Amino acid sequence: MKNQTIITVKLDDRAYPITIGASILENKFDFDPWIKGKDCLIVTNVNVAPLYLDLLLSNIKNKKVETLILPDGESNKTLHIWSQILDKLVAMKANRDSTVIALGGGVIGDVVGFASASYMRGLPYIQIPTTLLSQVDSSVGGKTGINHSQGKNLIGAFYQPSLVLVDINTLSTLPNRELICGLAEIIKYGAIFDKEFFCWLEKNISNLLNRNSEALVHAISISCSIKAKIVSEDEFETGRRIILNFGHTFAHALENLLGYGKLQHGEAVAIGMILAAKLSPIENDDLERLEHLIKKAQLPCKVDSIDSNEMLEIMLLDKKVRAKQLRLVLLSSLGNAYVEEDISHERILDVINKTLS
Amino acid sequence: MKNQTIITVKLDDRAYPITIGASILENKFDFDPWIKGKDCLIVTNVNVAPLYLDLLLSNIKNKKVETLILPDGESNKTLHIWSQILDKLVAMKANRDSTVIALGGGVIGDVVGFASASYMRGLPYIQIPTTLLSQVDSSVGGKTGINHSQGKNLIGAFYQPSLVLVDINTLSTLPNRELICGLAEIIKYGAIFDKEFFCWLEKNISNLLNRNSEALVHAISISCSIKAKIVSEDEFETGRRIILNFGHTFAHALENLLGYGKLQHGEAVAIGMILAAKLSPIENDDLERLEHLIKKAQLPCKVDSIDSNEMLEIMLLDKKVRAKQLRLVLLSSLGNAYVEEDISHERILDVINKTLS
Repeated sequence: MKNQTIITVKLDDRAYPITIGASILENKFDFDPWIKGKDCLIVTNVNVAPLYLDLLLSNIKNKKVETLILPDGESNKTLHIWSQILDKLVAMKANRDSTVIALGGGVIGDVVGFASASYMRGLPYIQIPTTLLSQVDSSVGGKTGINHSQGKNLIGAFYQPSLVLVDINTLSTLPNRELICGLAEIIKYGAIFDKEFFCWLEKNISNLLNRNSEALVHAISISCSIKAKIVSEDEFETGRRIILNFGHTFAHALENLLGYGKLQHGEAVAIGMILAAKLSPIENDDLERLEHLIKKAQLPCKVDSIDSNEMLEIMLLDKKVRAKQLRLVLLSSLGNAYVEEDISHERILDVINKTLS
Repeated sequence: MKNQTIITVKLDDRAYPITIGASILENKFDFDPWIKGKDCLIVTNVNVAPLYLDLLLSNIKNKKVETLILPDGESNKTLHIWSQILDKLVAMKANRDSTVIALGGGVIGDVVGFASASYMRGLPYIQIPTTLLSQVDSSVGGKTGINHSQGKNLIGAFYQPSLVLVDINTLSTLPNRELICGLAEIIKYGAIFDKEFFCWLEKNISNLLNRNSEALVHAISISCSIKAKIVSEDEFETGRRIILNFGHTFAHALENLLGYGKLQHGEAVAIGMILAAKLSPIENDDLERLEHLIKKAQLPCKVDSIDSNEMLEIMLLDKKVRAKQLRLVLLSSLGNAYVEEDISHERILDVINKTLS
């Protein structure tokens, strides 16, 4: 089919494909090979359900299909919502042959993924991400989880979906601010791994903002390939995978500090990338190109009135902190990232102070 | 060291040793290679803490050690207790280098294992099982989980410990009824996998009841070897591993039906094995030998007043049910088990009625 790409995430017996294209659901995708048992549960949210639930349902034939519609937003990525999904699976007497389908953005994907991982110690699940951010980020790599009042994604599992379906038509209804958030992660892939892609983004960022189909499929495909490549080398984040967190240690702290929801994740990542780049041993020209691309994507480069000490305190609770020593992902050049463990708290405080206050 | 055995559970990069022996903690075990980071959390319960917590603490040098003491009993294998452990890990700012130690029986092992699996998507954890049942069963194979009001272990993860330490001295304080429950699982290993071991049990069951050290180390070692062998061939229970559930589909239903706590797990397994054996195409002599050994171990062969229809209904919710077709583990002979999918609900009801009413 024209304008459709399949990327395989190579993880031994847990390998799975990501199918990316336009009008996949309108052209009736064949779910049969992916729903092994007799029943499945579609979990979505109040915003996505009216837009795409009926369309998805029309794709699934000869199965007992149940649906669960959750409230929307990061504040619902909770233990309570997770246990609601489990209760629903119990109520429908789901067993290990039952399939779960997550239809929605990153919040839906993460909480449904963790419920799929936990129910009877693991059901097959399919991700149909409907936001740009989830299409290029959370749908690849098997990180699932929920938030704790003390930190994002503190509770969860590494659990791989059996299939990811990216139908870019779902982006047609995405609010502009959320589309832009997805661009932050896309820019990240260029910055940490692929200078050629970074250059492509510099030329095509307005095509992406204008939701040009071909540009979107290209950007999503390259982003997923890069993430798939890094993840397949390090499924459980013991090594190289950490470079995917470029900007994220700062971003999580910012989100936590400002309260979830004030700053969108992609916006926080954009600011986090600026902070990490300023700590990086790169040419000033490269730093300026990154800042320029972030601005061109209509992403923020700063927020005001951050207490740098409080921010550092939260960063030290990050999952990637080992023995209280911050490990930050920095750039050696545009397109190349590395992990720096030897960085003083003073320098970090200094960069936060100079950028965010 | 005399009378000490090490069994390796072979699971690629998740392989781990089970060390079995007497006085392991009194002789000061070297935990250093097993606690990589600077801090660890010991989770135990109100019954075990006064008996063995100080002894365990005296084994751990130069680490920041925190402890969490939970209430005792199957009724505490809940989402609430699980989230208490997570809260404790958050409060101590545990990170992925922190180690969790589960000191106690199967309930502690299961809920602490699931918390270790879930916190930051996985911390290293050590199991120190203190009951015979957990020493031969839940400490091998990586099944962790909590109960749901609608069924046992409905929520959980496959997650392997980094080390299991079986110090049979902890059995000296175990109530007799609980020791006997462990014998049910030990008998199971003989029945499904090892006729020679079954014969050894027929000769040595009173030594085990009398807590003879050498007999206990032998029985635990053989049991763990058998389970390790089966599990390493099928970590995620997609095939052969299911034979470990001999008697368990019935047992879980009985426990659920009578309310957790009325019947101990091992007692329910003993009755379940009788029911499964009666459905099996084995010689009457073999059935009698199994019944005789179960009785000699002071385990029950029946309970009264079970509603067979209600019991079957609950069995159909079991994790191993595929497409509403019960799959039962039966014996082809003593020492050999297989999975039977083609068994009518009528025959099952008949055997339940004839045995349990």
